[in-house]
Parts: sequence; structure tokens; C-alpha cells
Amino acid sequence: MTELITDVQTYDIRFPTSRHLDGSDAMNPEPDYSAAYVVVRTSEGQEGHALAFTVGRGNEIEVAAIDSLAALVTGLPVAEVLGDLGGVSRRLTGDSQLRWLGPEKGVIHMAAGAVLNALWDLRARREGKPLWRLLSELTPEQLVDVVDFRYLEDALTREEALDILRRAEPGRAERRERLLAEGYPAYTTTPGWLGYTDEKLVRLAKEAVADGFTQIKLKVGADLAGDVHRMRLARQAVGPGIRIAIDANQAWGVRQAVEWLAPLAEFDPYWIEEPTSPDDVLGHAAIREKVAPIKVATGEHTHNRVMFKQLLQAGAIDILQLDAARVGGVNENIAILLLAAKFGVPVCPHAGGVGLCEMVQHFSMFDYVAVSGSTEDRVIEYVDHLHEHFTDPVVIRDGNYLAPAEPGIGARMHPKSIADYGYPDGPEWTAPVAEAV
Amino acid sequence: MTELITDVQTYDIRFPTSRHLDGSDAMNPEPDYSAAYVVVRTSEGQEGHALAFTVGRGNEIEVAAIDSLAALVTGLPVAEVLGDLGGVSRRLTGDSQLRWLGPEKGVIHMAAGAVLNALWDLRARREGKPLWRLLSELTPEQLVDVVDFRYLEDALTREEALDILRRAEPGRAERRERLLAEGYPAYTTTPGWLGYTDEKLVRLAKEAVADGFTQIKLKVGADLAGDVHRMRLARQAVGPGIRIAIDANQAWGVRQAVEWLAPLAEFDPYWIEEPTSPDDVLGHAAIREKVAPIKVATGEHTHNRVMFKQLLQAGAIDILQLDAARVGGVNENIAILLLAAKFGVPVCPHAGGVGLCEMVQHFSMFDYVAVSGSTEDRVIEYVDHLHEHFTDPVVIRDGNYLAPAEPGIGARMHPKSIADYGYPDGPEWTAPVAEAV
Repeated sequence: MTELITDVQTYDIRFPTSRHLDGSDAMNPEPDYSAAYVVVRTSEGQEGHALAFTVGRGNEIEVAAIDSLAALVTGLPVAEVLGDLGGVSRRLTGDSQLRWLGPEKGVIHMAAGAVLNALWDLRARREGKPLWRLLSELTPEQLVDVVDFRYLEDALTREEALDILRRAEPGRAERRERLLAEGYPAYTTTPGWLGYTDEKLVRLAKEAVADGFTQIKLKVGADLAGDVHRMRLARQAVGPGIRIAIDANQAWGVRQAVEWLAPLAEFDPYWIEEPTSPDDVLGHAAIREKVAPIKVATGEHTHNRVMFKQLLQAGAIDILQLDAARVGGVNENIAILLLAAKFGVPVCPHAGGVGLCEMVQHFSMFDYVAVSGSTEDRVIEYVDHLHEHFTDPVVIRDGNYLAPAEPGIGARMHPKSIADYGYPDGPEWTAPVAEAV
Repeated sequence: MTELITDVQTYDIRFPTSRHLDGSDAMNPEPDYSAAYVVVRTSEGQEGHALAFTVGRGNEIEVAAIDSLAALVTGLPVAEVLGDLGGVSRRLTGDSQLRWLGPEKGVIHMAAGAVLNALWDLRARREGKPLWRLLSELTPEQLVDVVDFRYLEDALTREEALDILRRAEPGRAERRERLLAEGYPAYTTTPGWLGYTDEKLVRLAKEAVADGFTQIKLKVGADLAGDVHRMRLARQAVGPGIRIAIDANQAWGVRQAVEWLAPLAEFDPYWIEEPTSPDDVLGHAAIREKVAPIKVATGEHTHNRVMFKQLLQAGAIDILQLDAARVGGVNENIAILLLAAKFGVPVCPHAGGVGLCEMVQHFSMFDYVAVSGSTEDRVIEYVDHLHEHFTDPVVIRDGNYLAPAEPGIGARMHPKSIADYGYPDGPEWTAPVAEAV
């Protein structure tokens, strides 16, 4: 019997993070970190797991979108699907009716990404490899075959992408060994949430340095005097040798960004992240011109490769922050890594949330081994919460992500977490809420 | 008792248009024109109706998104809501959890637009005015109060918007009379769908001219030889004095657009619509530079005011095609009209679909009376199908939209249509399908 994809099952999982203000920033004052979780099953009982990340309300819409896309893969032969994930990607993002809901943006695109990532997870598990290794063992031709070059060719052709990948081929083995020995650099956002007291900010910042991190990040944009105060505290706590990135989470317009950053400049912020609307390519370019040497970073809400293409074409960013669960899955993230390599812009992925650290590390490690070939000025965001819900949580040592050895994309959660945090009927949501300490 | 918003009810309505290939283009070969239909009800039995348009599969996701947003307005006092539709707009598009699904794009933004439009419909019905008249009787201050200037101020400040509106104020009464007497210019896409035979194309093109239209539109982008053939037929059918717009529905990359248009230029196309990805601001600018004097038009998939701002800033478009059901409702469309007026770019709205003609005419008429003050080079798209399902269908005379006199935004459907085309349980979907003629 041909093995078929028999089932695409979804789960609405939410963590009540708003009760403790973990994850609080200028635009997300009370998030409940959530996952529209998806499990693809085959007729031989194999599974692929992935998720779309949201911050609470609306997770049910994301689940509904994944349910609607499920029909496009259910019943297909597994070998055919996993052997042509480029074609499957184009079917999921290009369905002639569903694409009206995007195209390639927002709810429907995140859903396509979740389904694709679950299929890549299934493939990686079958091959017994962590995703980063699976990808970095594919040939340049196999890699470009999963990329959709539609709308990219004025900036990056298939041939140019092949050239980039071929140039990196000779060094793959050496870099893989180095990655396995040393890991990949991380930075931490753990000290920087807006809801924290001064004491907690200083303590966590010092702990971060003691733990080996060379970069931390602070949320800004809610209150200028408060930002100056917290930035001064943080700089005093970590000293001059540690990079401090700041993140406004889209709080400003172009002029306001420039004005707000002026009094922060004396504390030497390394980058300003999401200074304005994620859609505003030209706005980012205008801000970048005015706030140098502070670098401009964005990407966690950049909805597809066409937007990243323009951010690069316009010289709008110094740092590209791809996200594992915003765009159209592994396929589109390969396209984005290739674009970044073409333009020579370092990728420092967005992470945190639910399972984003677990997933996104694979892209940076693949990039290092097989695309850009470099970790210079590249760091993966790290936030220390919710990892305990994953079967293969990230491992951080001396400020580095250690290369995962377990097969898959890293998004598989413990069955108990899926049950306990199911919304609205799981016990964590139906039990009486204790007062926050 | 204070009158409250008691209920936001949704309906999944789909028309099986794919059975006859009406509405077929290069990217939408088999659409089933659909509406995520929303009715807002008050405790005194009043109603506001609106819809988000989709092309079939996925309409259920749009319905789910509207259902999720309903909680943000249900239970509020009607007077408070209708008296502060600017504030309501910011609450619907800026909810700190739901905005993660966009922000301000795709499924969640179209849902916010549908809810807002239903509230404007309710307000217009209570005031006994068609929307265009309601808007063009507001003061400049009242109009700018409903606009969200966040992310716009590097291109258009509140003060500049006020200036535009104030300059148009003295001529409002005269233009309103002229509008009531003559209507607003239309163009027709009825002849141009890809699924039609040569004979049908020629016949419908000639009928359009006989009916008083001075512009028609053809779909292109699926097959170059076919496009040359159909464009030649169309030009022969209508003669040199009629404008022929062409529409690629996002089929091309930048280079391909330029190449494809070269052999079509001899037939004097007036504008090329959606030559590439709706997200590609810089791509549209590059195409425009190379294909002049053919004008570049886009907007039906442009997902918010920030994208329109950039299309205008980059000089990427000659024609701005706003859509009644893509962005965040009346509020954001006022912002877009103000941006277009600031940059001096004519607005020629997208219509067709389900109820888009009925809704979008109000924006152009408001623009004429109270914003740009002009109909020069401005035409509203017209497609002759599905109007019979609306209680106040558009009226076209001599190639013009006549100004609606009935109160509301125009999206109210007959109860029988809502029942008959309900998906998947309505009789039009459960009855056996007759063979297409």
C-alpha cells in the first residue's frame, strides 16, 4: 500500500503569559503566547509537527486557516509530497481561491508556513536528521528547487542563487564540525521586557553577561523618559563591551523614530529593531539614513520574500530578522537567506514566543554551513521561557545555541503541554487563577 | 434604556461563478465569488450590513475572523460607537493580540474593514443618507478624526489633510448637484474575462461602446500570443477613441512585465493593472519607468494605507485602485483618498466581485464632492454580474454610475440570496448542478 497523508490535525494552545507580563512590549502589553499547532500524520503512523505563533486572541483564526489548507495535502502519497516540497509550497501559497486572502501574507500565509514546516519536520524525522543538517546536505540544485523565484528575479535569479550555494559547498564539512563543536552565537531578550522592575532588569542583564552573552536587548517605545532611564541602567550593568539592541515593536512613525532615538544614542544602542510599520520599506530606509551609526533591524512581521527583497534593494536594513513562523515555511526562509547572502546583510533571526527558538536555530545553522558561510555579526535571539513544553528544547551554553542532534524542525511539544494548555478547555484555562506574585 | 450593539452575525455566502468562468483571469482561473457577510444589530432592531469579498475557498476563514472581532464591539452603546468611529477603527485594527495576525493586512484586516463598514452602514441608515452623502456632509475636522495617521505623517500630516479638505469645501454643493445630475464615469470589465470566446469578446466590447462606456478592460497574462490576438480584436471592435485597460492580475515579475507589454504596445493599452506582486512597490516603480506611456495601476490587493503611501512616494503608480473591502473600511479608504489627493494621482476603484460596485461608488463620489473635487481621468470599474442580489443595486446610465439615493453603504443583500447561496447548506449548493451551456 502506498503511504498516504491521512490527517492534518490542529490544536489551539495558549499560555497565560499575560498574567506575569513576560513578553510585554510597546505594542503587545498583555500577550498570551500561543500556538496554532499542527500535526501531519501518515497511514504508517509517522508524524510531522509544527506551529504558527500568535499572541492570544485570534489563535482560533489561525487554526481555522490551517484546517482549510489541510484539504490541499490530505490523501496525497507521502513520497510524492516529500519529494516535491517546492511544488507543494507553490500549491499551498498559490491556490487560486485561497490566495485572495493574502496573497502570501497574514493569517493564510502563516498557515501555509505551518503546514509546510510540519511536512519538512516529517521529512527530517524520516531521514533521522535535524532540519539544519537535512538542508545543509542537500545539493544546490535541490535547494533552489524548493524556492519560488516568482517576483524575486529582478534581485535574485535561480542562477545567482545556485552560484551562492556552490561557492559555499567546499567549506560545508569544516563549518559543520565547527558548528557541532562551538554552537551558534545567541543574544538574549530576557532582561528587556517593559513590565520588569529596575532591580529585575539590572539583575537579569548582569546574569546574561555572566552566562556568556555578548548582546542583550531592551524593549523601548512606550515612554521616552523611561527608556532613557532603563537604557542607562542597562549600560551601567553590562559595561561598554556588550552590545545592547533596542526594540520599538513598530511604535513610531518615521520622524518620531528619529526624534526618540536621539537621546538614547549616548548609551550606544547597537540596533534599533522595528522602529516603524513592518510594511514601510521606504520608512525604514529614511530612518536608517538618519540614525546611523545605530543599525536598523526588522523582519519578524515582514510577511514574505517580496518585502524582504525590497528592504534589501532599498538599503533599508542593516540586520535581517527572519522568523520561523511568519512566512511560508522552510521554503520561503531559504529564499530569504539567499537574498540576504546576495546583498551581504547579516541574518539575526527573531525568536522567543512559543517554539520560535527551537525552530529558527535550524535556519541560522543551515545558513552558516551552506549559504553565507559566516557567523560574523550574526546572533540568534534567545528568550528563556516556555522551552519546557518542547520535547527537544534548545540548549544554550556560554551564550551559544548548541546544534540540535534530534531529528526534525524542533517544534514538537509534550502531549501533556498540548492537553494542559488547550484553549479554552484545557485545565490551565479552566482552573481558578492564582494571584500573580 | 441605552441602545446597545447586541449582535454581530456572519454568513458564508458563495456564488458558483466558476461553473461559467465569469471572473476568470490569469491568477484566478476558477473563482466562486463569495462574501463573508456581516450584520450588526442593535437593541432597538436597527441593522448595519457589509461584507468582505473573497473568491471561494477560505471564505470560512474570513467569517471566522469577523466572528472573533465581533467581541470588540458587541455590548457597546450605539451612540458611543457611531460617535467615535475613529476610535473604534483603532481598537479593531490595533487590538494588542489580534494585530499579530496582520498587522493591518490579509484576513484580519479585511475582517476589521467589514465590521467597520457595517457600522458606517448602520450610521448612514440612521441618518437616512447614502454613505457618499454622509461623508461629504462631514466637516474637515470630523473627517480627519476618523483617519489613523500613524505611519502616514512622513507623507501626509493631519494638517495637510485638513488643508486638502478645506480647499474643497466651497465647491461641495455645486459638485453634489452635478453628481446627482450626471453620475460618475464608469468603465467596464464585462467583455474582458479570459474564459470568453473571440465572438463573445467582440460582441461585449461593441455593446460596451454602444452603452456609452469610453473605457473597457481586458484580462491578460496567461498566454502572450492569445493576449496579442484578443487585444487586436478588442481594438478593432472599439476603434481608436476608446481606452482599453489591461489587467495581468499579478502574473509577472518585473522583467517579464516589461517584455510581455512590448508587443501589446501597438494596440495602445491605456493602463497595465497589477503587472506584478501587489507587495512590490519598487517593482511597480521599475516597471512604470520602462513601459511609459502605458500607465501603471494597482490597488485591489494593496493591503493598507502604508503600502499606498509608498506606492505614491516611490512614483510607482499612475492610477490608484482602492477597494471597498480589502483595507480597514471607510476610515482607511478616506486616508487613501487623502493620500492620492496629496500626490495628485487619480483614483479609479476596483469593483466587480460581490457588492464591490455597490460599495465603492460611494468613495469615488465622496472624493469628487469633498476631496479631489475632480472626475478627470477617474473611472469606477463596472462588471455586470451579481447585482440582482442586492437591495440597492448600482444603476448605470450612459456609462456613468448614478448617485445612490438609498441610505447606507450599498452592501445589503436580499434575504433570499443570503439563504439560497449560504455555503455549504444553501439550496444553490446542495441542488444537483446542471451542465454549463
